[in-house]
Amino acid sequence: MRITFDETKNQLEKVLLKYGCCGEHAQKAAYEIARNSLEGVYTHGINRFARLIRNIGEGIVRPNEKPETIHTFGGIENVDGRLGLGIINAWHCMGRAIELAKEHGIGLIALRNTNHWFRAATYGHQACDAGMAGICFTNTIPNMPTWGAMDSRIGNNPLVFAFPHKGGPHIIADMAMSQFSYGALELARLQNYQMPMAAGFNRNGELTTDPGEVIESRRLLPTGYWKGAALSFVMDIFASCIALGNSTAAIGRLAGDEHGVSQCFIAINYKEIAPGNTPDGILEDAIQNLISSKKDKNTQRIVYSGQKITETRAENLLKGIPVDDKIWEAILKL
Amino acid sequence: MRITFDETKNQLEKVLLKYGCCGEHAQKAAYEIARNSLEGVYTHGINRFARLIRNIGEGIVRPNEKPETIHTFGGIENVDGRLGLGIINAWHCMGRAIELAKEHGIGLIALRNTNHWFRAATYGHQACDAGMAGICFTNTIPNMPTWGAMDSRIGNNPLVFAFPHKGGPHIIADMAMSQFSYGALELARLQNYQMPMAAGFNRNGELTTDPGEVIESRRLLPTGYWKGAALSFVMDIFASCIALGNSTAAIGRLAGDEHGVSQCFIAINYKEIAPGNTPDGILEDAIQNLISSKKDKNTQRIVYSGQKITETRAENLLKGIPVDDKIWEAILKL
Repeated sequence: MRITFDETKNQLEKVLLKYGCCGEHAQKAAYEIARNSLEGVYTHGINRFARLIRNIGEGIVRPNEKPETIHTFGGIENVDGRLGLGIINAWHCMGRAIELAKEHGIGLIALRNTNHWFRAATYGHQACDAGMAGICFTNTIPNMPTWGAMDSRIGNNPLVFAFPHKGGPHIIADMAMSQFSYGALELARLQNYQMPMAAGFNRNGELTTDPGEVIESRRLLPTGYWKGAALSFVMDIFASCIALGNSTAAIGRLAGDEHGVSQCFIAINYKEIAPGNTPDGILEDAIQNLISSKKDKNTQRIVYSGQKITETRAENLLKGIPVDDKIWEAILKL
Repeated sequence: MRITFDETKNQLEKVLLKYGCCGEHAQKAAYEIARNSLEGVYTHGINRFARLIRNIGEGIVRPNEKPETIHTFGGIENVDGRLGLGIINAWHCMGRAIELAKEHGIGLIALRNTNHWFRAATYGHQACDAGMAGICFTNTIPNMPTWGAMDSRIGNNPLVFAFPHKGGPHIIADMAMSQFSYGALELARLQNYQMPMAAGFNRNGELTTDPGEVIESRRLLPTGYWKGAALSFVMDIFASCIALGNSTAAIGRLAGDEHGVSQCFIAINYKEIAPGNTPDGILEDAIQNLISSKKDKNTQRIVYSGQKITETRAENLLKGIPVDDKIWEAILKL
């Protein structure tokens, strides 16, 4: 089934209003969630919406709370998300980082007590659209063992690096610290295929490409093995210790679904570092060099990270957003 | 062979002085290079020293050049490294980031025309020792194909996230964007063992654990496959476009060994974000939670990234730094 962007957005907004969300927050959250699906990030768009509504019902997402500034010092600021909507809080914080970067060249916001921000790249795009480079990351509930461990004590903590590209789609790396998500593994198990590379460990502690074995062992593989495990832990420490919020360890002790996470947002007003100069030439040269790489026989096209968004967006605007029938029917009944 | 730290440092300093390096730079560079080996990072310590001396001889490392500030705006600053010693330039820049963070809460230095900084974690430690969180990254010569490509057009661009830990070794993730280095592959080929997981592609475009096959194909595997490739490219864009320096593409076009790279240094004065509060409790809880993970049958001990440095340092201080006989003899002859 395909649904237009406007129909999607309006339906999500209607449901959010029904569940007690104020008009301003409902409009913004619905827009961003629909946009995630429009741009091809289905797992962090429509497909996650029912869980958000469930979390509102459970009281762990409080849709009308507003982020509260705790303290500002120069270009850094501490914000309490008061368990509000993750999208509203994160958008506010990257917006503040951009404001602080206008004055200080760089701004950093540490956010505590917030909720799932849906698509990490949203806030990278936000910085880029304001003409700034952006870095942001979040911690999560424990969902992955650290390197050499059996039990899940680190999060898959997505990380974003984003740089504006005037001539086309922004350059945005948006990566979770697990090689594959449980969502991807569950889809593979359902459709009965193996992952293209090791996705985790089986019950015997051996690397496996079998999605069912990893789901059974709960031993998801960190991105780059020990490397992703290390980066996940340090990002968790950054976000929780700077924000004075929950670490992944603390989130794991809270009752119920994931909530109360910690995040970090950095905006870099890089144009002010060299007034009168522009990196446009450096950027275009690097892009051209990359995308003209010699292709592997199995590769159709070499792209930079973020490049395909414009095309997916254009196609889904034209044809409608592809939606799983059952997921859409469930949303219509909410 | 084992050599004391002081003997190592003094010998390296003597050689640097002989090759025309001023006393101040020779002392600092020799200290940091010896310290890298002391703390167990042999590949980026003594083992890399002869290459530095060769690069000085080639004129691509200019040991007496000093970093020059191009422009400062609030907490951000643009610095030209003038092809000086990578360690001197990088230390200067993280130092400036720390200074700017004292005033603005956060500081960012973009550095162009610099050289190999040896061990990336050095500058993370520097921030931590000043009581600040640090992020830094560098680009490199092209040494890895991007995802789906045959020819090397991206760098392995090391990334550091560092957070201070009063009660013990700082928490420092220091990761290159290649799963294994060519150094590690060459050692494995020499000693005739397979890598523990895929290290790259063979000539048929298949993933392989055989070090010889990867060295032959020059198709090193990015950390986390497409993820490390994406992050490598965006970090390259950050460093080169903010610093207005060479991208990996441009470095690849320069004649001779790698030189003229671009780097980025961020220091975060996080204590000022919440005066009167401390994240010590959050940090200790997260560390305890991690290191008490249930171990895999093959795991002797779970550690956080950076934790082992103190022990290696103590052992090497006591017993001397382990040095390859041939490498040390070559240094004595320089």
